[in-house]
Amino acid sequence: MIKNVAIIGLGLLGGSVGLAAAKHLPDITTTGYDAAPDVRAKAAELALVGTVCETLAETVRDADLVVLCVPVGAMRNAAGGLKGLLKQGAIVSDVGSSKQSVLDDLRAELPGQIIIPAHPVAGTEQSGPDAGFATLFTGRWCILTPPAGADEDAVTALTAFWQGLGAKTEIMEAAHHDLVLAVTSHIPHLIAYTIVGTASDLEDVTRSEVIKYSAGGFRDFTRIAASDPVMWRDVFLQNKGAVLEMLGRFTEDLTAMQRAIRSGDGETLEELFERTRKIRRSIIEQGQDDAAPDFGRDH
Amino acid sequence: MIKNVAIIGLGLLGGSVGLAAAKHLPDITTTGYDAAPDVRAKAAELALVGTVCETLAETVRDADLVVLCVPVGAMRNAAGGLKGLLKQGAIVSDVGSSKQSVLDDLRAELPGQIIIPAHPVAGTEQSGPDAGFATLFTGRWCILTPPAGADEDAVTALTAFWQGLGAKTEIMEAAHHDLVLAVTSHIPHLIAYTIVGTASDLEDVTRSEVIKYSAGGFRDFTRIAASDPVMWRDVFLQNKGAVLEMLGRFTEDLTAMQRAIRSGDGETLEELFERTRKIRRSIIEQGQDDAAPDFGRDH
Repeated sequence: MIKNVAIIGLGLLGGSVGLAAAKHLPDITTTGYDAAPDVRAKAAELALVGTVCETLAETVRDADLVVLCVPVGAMRNAAGGLKGLLKQGAIVSDVGSSKQSVLDDLRAELPGQIIIPAHPVAGTEQSGPDAGFATLFTGRWCILTPPAGADEDAVTALTAFWQGLGAKTEIMEAAHHDLVLAVTSHIPHLIAYTIVGTASDLEDVTRSEVIKYSAGGFRDFTRIAASDPVMWRDVFLQNKGAVLEMLGRFTEDLTAMQRAIRSGDGETLEELFERTRKIRRSIIEQGQDDAAPDFGRDH
Repeated sequence: MIKNVAIIGLGLLGGSVGLAAAKHLPDITTTGYDAAPDVRAKAAELALVGTVCETLAETVRDADLVVLCVPVGAMRNAAGGLKGLLKQGAIVSDVGSSKQSVLDDLRAELPGQIIIPAHPVAGTEQSGPDAGFATLFTGRWCILTPPAGADEDAVTALTAFWQGLGAKTEIMEAAHHDLVLAVTSHIPHLIAYTIVGTASDLEDVTRSEVIKYSAGGFRDFTRIAASDPVMWRDVFLQNKGAVLEMLGRFTEDLTAMQRAIRSGDGETLEELFERTRKIRRSIIEQGQDDAAPDFGRDH
């Protein structure tokens, strides 16, 4: 049974875990810590967790579950800081976007501990302690990637915790998670960051023109490209293999489209454009996006 | 003075022009035509224009302005159909996403006519006569691309018409328009269509997984990739030069990102990701997108 939850890192994700727990799981006690004193102060002001602590030791002393909510490149250090501070039987988990690297890092630093990495597939382009909200996980999927032989009661307890926060849950191998998320999240972010960079570096089209005429499609990409730079830098470095694999497939397909345009092959273009419509329909039917046109933007 | 406006093609754009004119410019009379009988019937039912006509001749007989709202690949045929039907001094315009090809096509078919192509940078991923609405152009930019020596009164009148519909207007050379829109609209669409295709063709990640975990970023791309297939096929074929040019720059930049990931160069990644945040801030400040996180999606 999870009674006390310690949240390490109080940004968008950590703050949302704390707020969702307060809203949905009032019997659970939460403590929180952030390495930055101003973030701790803001988190206390906003009551993101029950108690904002001044030391890691105090934060995790009574915790049955410790959730690391730091960039994936900072996981190893964060886990290292917990050495010798944890209760016997405490579960160590996280919310990071790459899972094999996190699993390896946590096991290396905390060899005696129960380690069950997790990834709630939810977020916004905003970051920091102001960005969290209690309903971030409602109806979204949280993927747990327990290593082979993981404590089954702990997996059950962590599953119940995430379902309690409003999420749907799935169990997956870490390596498969990394491949799936490379295509549904990491490559989309990389492409968005890149095209926004391309557009702002042009000489024959001004930045003012790019901004004025962004409603033609470009503005959609700028939302994702406004996401936290350090978090995303770490994702690409930590999930390098799967990202490069999926990027290779995307650029192959893009080259085929380029050839179709150059040779005036309208059939190939139209065939793809018809197929892609259906995927959106399925996403809406399965409650993973709103049906309103243009994301329901105000017109 | 524009008193009578004929709208050829009654889909998302044509329907929205008719509805916006009825709302904002009640003194203007609108007629409309669509080659598809079922679209004409639906347009009449929804009162997209004042009068839905059964022939092109009847539609344009009294028109001071004819607005072609058909895919850019159909412009030449549509213009050819107007030969000998237009009033002396009538302005022929359009709403197409490529402008040099439209200018060339309209001039070839209607050599004696006043031709002023235009492009309202507005739309949604939906299409057809049901998709139009009166406020589609509010606060969006409409780019006019009059050829050198175009009738100044006609440019002034068309500018006033679009401003009357709620748009902001800009004058640009057709070739420059095509370069600007290649980066702010056409390449974003091509990339979105391609990644959605890549994701649905994978063997090691199922389509069901792609849909379930689409909230990680992928779902944003599916909106654009649900846009009208024929319209977009035509855009890529008609604006081939500018699209291939901008695609070349994008793939160069993407290759540089790929190299940075492969070599573990976090600095290069973070530097780009910091820069791209600022562009979104400018787009929001200039009223070209909502400030609400995650496009204001319901959480």
